[in-house]
Amino acid sequence: MKPEQHLSVCVLLIISVTWTANGGNILVWYTEGSHWINMKPVLETLVGRGHQVKVLIPSTSMFMNSSEPSRFGYEPFNVSVSLEAIEALMEEFLHFSVYEMDHMSYLQIYIRFIDLMKVNMQNSLKMLDGVLKSETIMKKLKEGKYDLLLADPVYPGSDLLAEILGIPLVYSLRFSIAHNWERYCGQLPAPPSFVPGAMSKLTDKMDFSERVWNFLYYALQDTVQHHIFWKGLDKYYSEVKGTPTSACETMGRADIWLMRTYWDFDFPRPFLPNFKFVGGIHCRPAKPLPEDMEEFVQSSGDAGIVVFTLGSFIKNITTEKGNMVASALAQIPQKVLWRYSGEKPATLGSNTRIYNWIPQNDLLGHPKTRAFITHGGTNGIYEAIYHGVPMVGIPLFGDQPENMVHMKTKGAALSVDLNFMKTEDLRDALRDVINEKSYKENAMWLSSIFHDRPMSPRDEAVFWIEFTMRNKGAKHLRVQAHELTWYQYHSLDVLAFLLAIALFLILLFIKTCSFCFRRCCGRKGKTKRKGGVND
Amino acid sequence: MKPEQHLSVCVLLIISVTWTANGGNILVWYTEGSHWINMKPVLETLVGRGHQVKVLIPSTSMFMNSSEPSRFGYEPFNVSVSLEAIEALMEEFLHFSVYEMDHMSYLQIYIRFIDLMKVNMQNSLKMLDGVLKSETIMKKLKEGKYDLLLADPVYPGSDLLAEILGIPLVYSLRFSIAHNWERYCGQLPAPPSFVPGAMSKLTDKMDFSERVWNFLYYALQDTVQHHIFWKGLDKYYSEVKGTPTSACETMGRADIWLMRTYWDFDFPRPFLPNFKFVGGIHCRPAKPLPEDMEEFVQSSGDAGIVVFTLGSFIKNITTEKGNMVASALAQIPQKVLWRYSGEKPATLGSNTRIYNWIPQNDLLGHPKTRAFITHGGTNGIYEAIYHGVPMVGIPLFGDQPENMVHMKTKGAALSVDLNFMKTEDLRDALRDVINEKSYKENAMWLSSIFHDRPMSPRDEAVFWIEFTMRNKGAKHLRVQAHELTWYQYHSLDVLAFLLAIALFLILLFIKTCSFCFRRCCGRKGKTKRKGGVND
Repeated sequence: MKPEQHLSVCVLLIISVTWTANGGNILVWYTEGSHWINMKPVLETLVGRGHQVKVLIPSTSMFMNSSEPSRFGYEPFNVSVSLEAIEALMEEFLHFSVYEMDHMSYLQIYIRFIDLMKVNMQNSLKMLDGVLKSETIMKKLKEGKYDLLLADPVYPGSDLLAEILGIPLVYSLRFSIAHNWERYCGQLPAPPSFVPGAMSKLTDKMDFSERVWNFLYYALQDTVQHHIFWKGLDKYYSEVKGTPTSACETMGRADIWLMRTYWDFDFPRPFLPNFKFVGGIHCRPAKPLPEDMEEFVQSSGDAGIVVFTLGSFIKNITTEKGNMVASALAQIPQKVLWRYSGEKPATLGSNTRIYNWIPQNDLLGHPKTRAFITHGGTNGIYEAIYHGVPMVGIPLFGDQPENMVHMKTKGAALSVDLNFMKTEDLRDALRDVINEKSYKENAMWLSSIFHDRPMSPRDEAVFWIEFTMRNKGAKHLRVQAHELTWYQYHSLDVLAFLLAIALFLILLFIKTCSFCFRRCCGRKGKTKRKGGVND
Repeated sequence: MKPEQHLSVCVLLIISVTWTANGGNILVWYTEGSHWINMKPVLETLVGRGHQVKVLIPSTSMFMNSSEPSRFGYEPFNVSVSLEAIEALMEEFLHFSVYEMDHMSYLQIYIRFIDLMKVNMQNSLKMLDGVLKSETIMKKLKEGKYDLLLADPVYPGSDLLAEILGIPLVYSLRFSIAHNWERYCGQLPAPPSFVPGAMSKLTDKMDFSERVWNFLYYALQDTVQHHIFWKGLDKYYSEVKGTPTSACETMGRADIWLMRTYWDFDFPRPFLPNFKFVGGIHCRPAKPLPEDMEEFVQSSGDAGIVVFTLGSFIKNITTEKGNMVASALAQIPQKVLWRYSGEKPATLGSNTRIYNWIPQNDLLGHPKTRAFITHGGTNGIYEAIYHGVPMVGIPLFGDQPENMVHMKTKGAALSVDLNFMKTEDLRDALRDVINEKSYKENAMWLSSIFHDRPMSPRDEAVFWIEFTMRNKGAKHLRVQAHELTWYQYHSLDVLAFLLAIALFLILLFIKTCSFCFRRCCGRKGKTKRKGGVND
């Protein structure tokens, strides 16, 4: 039994002592894709601990499925956008990120990105309408007497709902671009000299030019966020509340920010008492594989296996890429298990098997696993860290390229570019990661950091969710910075005041000196003249 | 069984799994007074967990006693200052702090304080000589093959020893003045706008004038520290190492900073991954009282008792003060247990008993305890927080006035001034704290914050000490800020660079405009003139 498993049992035991038989009543904000995959195990744990959990689910959800059997309930609501429109936008975004971006200039990328984000924002607000502007839903939520709202803020508005319902709010967040939300709304300090902006692809070790770029990156992203996110949201919040409202300040009401990273994956940086780092919240030990899969894995002998998936969004790649990838895989001695729904590549080697779905975590935890080919999503990377498996990244979009930068910097991965790679690039990267000892050693070191902490991430998340319910908030962890303006925060008013005093004193000194000098010289002059007269 | 007790058992169980039968070999830096009182229970726990613990003890120690039976060993060393000289300095400092200071101007206080600190620094360096410049001791320490040095940095030099021995270093620190060490050596961010400088007696809620004062306080203390502490220490370190050495950078090598506060006592503020807040590290449940004391306590009936001590340094006060205090105590319905070694005051009421020593923690944990009269030392305050007892502070020196500001701000205490108080001040403060419900409620809320955390402070401290030994350091928790200069940290070089570029562009723009304008107007003028000529 690993230390964190021991602790899990203990912590559950302890917290059980403080919780009465009928647990809390938790409302969960809607989310999507890997965010939802990440949220589900926490909800399962909360239900297992006697809490009632109800999840808001929009009619346009791609990943949440209210008909799937689960131990928590759903609260469905209608959205005025069609599921097709949402899916089309997602497809468009993926196509732009994976294929178009490499052939565009920075300016073109930015203009296209902002356009897509604007449409996404409009859709998000229409989803929000479905909750806040539906009398039926709001009545139900008010009557639901919830003790807490748990939200991944990637879809905005949860903070406004928490305020309207008058209940505490716990966030579960991977990151916002350039840590904009954490910095401005959560008051998280992030000096640009050693905290790389999220999505900048920089590390914490920056030379002068990188520090300049990081500084500009923060400024640029803050401007973009202001225009495509905050302006619209401020207007929306103000409309709903009927009074001028800052969405960022409302977001700052959150009692706890559960950040889905830890120092195995992230670079160390300053944080606040109400920020808890629970990276790998969804990780769990491997379960046995299906019989036929186990047989295939065992047939790999000492060479072992490679696990390959490009995540929940990308199921297929072009035929050309598929052939290239397959031919690279055919050249390694390992057996490969590839999650792929496209046409079977002509170059597929006998060592490679294609699956519509694979039990990724169970495969990564298998002793025969030598490497993981991944798109670089945080969930997959964390499972690899958990089990100590080195990685080859084929990052596609979003935070994936940056995630792979983290893993490369920590010496546990190599990366190849889907658009520019050749067969030998993938093959060589795989060979290096499998044969050079340092990758496995570093992956094991990250795994050791993951496991060797006082409490498992899921237990820590559950602890703080329950703490917030028990105490109806966590105000004692909230810094006073929330009450300051930006110039007060940076002591600019104090500096201006002290500078004014210093200038005044200098001026006074000069005036006094010149007055004395004039008096003195004047007298001397007079004396001299007097003397002269006397002479 | 309280939650943190459950957790203690569990955590011990878990960590046992990861530790082999023969534990680590821990060297402990010498310390004094309440710092030593605080350190001892941690050492006892470490010994109990199978580690070997050896404590460096100077021949001038006032509080550490190597002949006292204990489960850890001592490594004595000689110091060229006499115990009498050290005690005399302590007496002088106490007299200055408790009696002289109130009759002095700010400037006089500062000059006197700096003088005393200079002598203290000289003594500290002579103690350090006793270790670093003693071949016998250094040989013993090198041969001791220690896995870790645990140090309260209040006596300087532990970091240099850790560097020489090439072993990891864990600090246990209450605070440094204006957080100077934490900020400059540990890279802890502390914006003066909402983080009050330690010993400034400010809270985190500051108006403009307080923010100005806090800003100046940081600047002033940094200057003082530079002159009385860092300058001498840099010289000493450079001498020992034979190369120019920054003592602050050496201090920054510490792997973990165990900070002896938590958000029950302290105001929330930013921190770093290698700063762990373990306030109340020494606290433990109350044990039964001696029989006669229990009898006296029970005789208090519903009124309950008041526990009164002025800490380990001050045992007596003047006869006049003693009489005044005793007469205040005589006027309350509670029974009072007073730790006092002075002459029995004439005004002593029948409700008050004087003791040479009292089991403070066991009394504070007694259900009959209604209030605690304290000098405001952190150890005592934490015991009161642990047991949820409201306080009346008579702060004397050091951090005591500031500690009481914390407790007053959190609504769990009142304070009186030993030098200016009258009988009725103490009596009224006691009555208020006992009779107004809010004090008890707030003390219970602080107690609940103390207990309701994922892990008890002592277990957390032990976890990180053992983690550092297991992993020969904790470099993954160390921010890159350590590698930056102060102007790089604040991005001043980046700002200067961007400003220079902006100025250059503006200048270029102006030059280009004026050039075009001249060309344009010149041509126009010429045309006009031409026209004129043609006309």
